[in-house]
Amino acid sequence: MTEPSTKKSRSHPPYELLYWPGIPGRGEFIRLAFEASGVSYTDIGNESKEGIQQILALKADDSLGADGNSPAFAPPALRIPGEGKGGKPLLIYQTSCILSYLGDRLGLAGEDEAEKHWVLSHALTALDLNNETHDTHHPIATMKYYEEQKEEALKKAADFREARIPKFFGFFERVLKANKDQGQGKYLVGAKLSFADTTLWQVLDGLKFAFPNELAAREGEFPLLFGTFYPSVKEEKGIKEYLASKRRLPYSQGIFRHYPELDRQK
Amino acid sequence: MTEPSTKKSRSHPPYELLYWPGIPGRGEFIRLAFEASGVSYTDIGNESKEGIQQILALKADDSLGADGNSPAFAPPALRIPGEGKGGKPLLIYQTSCILSYLGDRLGLAGEDEAEKHWVLSHALTALDLNNETHDTHHPIATMKYYEEQKEEALKKAADFREARIPKFFGFFERVLKANKDQGQGKYLVGAKLSFADTTLWQVLDGLKFAFPNELAAREGEFPLLFGTFYPSVKEEKGIKEYLASKRRLPYSQGIFRHYPELDRQK
Repeated sequence: MTEPSTKKSRSHPPYELLYWPGIPGRGEFIRLAFEASGVSYTDIGNESKEGIQQILALKADDSLGADGNSPAFAPPALRIPGEGKGGKPLLIYQTSCILSYLGDRLGLAGEDEAEKHWVLSHALTALDLNNETHDTHHPIATMKYYEEQKEEALKKAADFREARIPKFFGFFERVLKANKDQGQGKYLVGAKLSFADTTLWQVLDGLKFAFPNELAAREGEFPLLFGTFYPSVKEEKGIKEYLASKRRLPYSQGIFRHYPELDRQK
Repeated sequence: MTEPSTKKSRSHPPYELLYWPGIPGRGEFIRLAFEASGVSYTDIGNESKEGIQQILALKADDSLGADGNSPAFAPPALRIPGEGKGGKPLLIYQTSCILSYLGDRLGLAGEDEAEKHWVLSHALTALDLNNETHDTHHPIATMKYYEEQKEEALKKAADFREARIPKFFGFFERVLKANKDQGQGKYLVGAKLSFADTTLWQVLDGLKFAFPNELAAREGEFPLLFGTFYPSVKEEKGIKEYLASKRRLPYSQGIFRHYPELDRQK
């Protein structure tokens, strides 16, 4: 159990994050949005021992949804008391859908219609990179052990490092460059922080943990991304406080795993 | 080149779909949204020989975006003349982001805030299944040939058929069941067609092409999904007309490929 994430704002509904305890995982993209904006939320899985039961119920193979909500495929999910039909809790799932819902409410969604859709698009692209990272250690079967698919993982990770990482990093470098007048290399869209920034930042941070050699060798190729964007987002007030807190969970056996054999060999 | 997709409605802006010519691919999810709602669009890649140049320009490795738009990672993209900054065209990308943009405008996004987010969530889950289908024939490297990763594809496809297909189908069966009072097994959310329905329908249709043995063996396990939902969406007026037109492209070497060795062996 980590320290409660209760923070200053109380003009918002009491948001509840439903995600596995003990790992950053896909829940981290939602946590970062709350933390960056200083809006309070309850991290159900991490703040009580019984919390995990709610997450297991959410994804049960026979669930027909609760409180009149449509069923959810997998965590993370967001529950918002009072916002559902007939005053019941609203429950939504899928990381990017939750970010889209919160983006407007937390002031992280861009300033106008165009920016709003670019923010969502770029967040989705960062989440694609997140998924591809997961697949480097699980290229064949999500539910089997890494050791059972290590041979394939070595091949997948080589392609990821050599083809996918430069493609994604090169793209985001161009997004920052195209927005440099407004964003100064610090923001992907417009002149302020959005959930596209926090989402991409988390993926870059996870990649630094999982592929330290590869990232160290690549950083110089993408000066805006690693020279300006990454350190700048890390210093955003809410993010900086969060990273220094016990609420920030260490990487371990989730999406970002450090298997030295999958990294660039020195 | 296929026949022009110009249809009745002219109260909408002249939407332009930017996607590779000749294959359904991820562009098909956007086409189905337009066709289901009877709103006209131009399919740039398929309606002129020169169209592909615009798609290549969109994803060029040195693109900084056009008309003041943020760069796009990959097609599909949607261009909407007059809707961008300063009256220029707006350009957005990522399938689910485009569907989210169009959903409100085409009447395919659900009736209220709760339904709107469930529609987006379920569409995202159907698109996850679409991506996992792609990975059955390309588990190691997107840019290499199937024949170069066939051994791994056999393993990936076995897990997909045995673990992933029943998980996704079981989930969508429950979504239909939970909404049966309103949706009658025909709609995932609420009492009318949404882009979650058209998106899931397309994935099911593609899977029937790619894994005919597996699907034939599985259909009876999911009576709402295959007995009601699939045939019902296929009969929706706009969809039915579209499927009978030359605009509907055949599956070939895109996401949905029929490799008999990856299917269930009889």
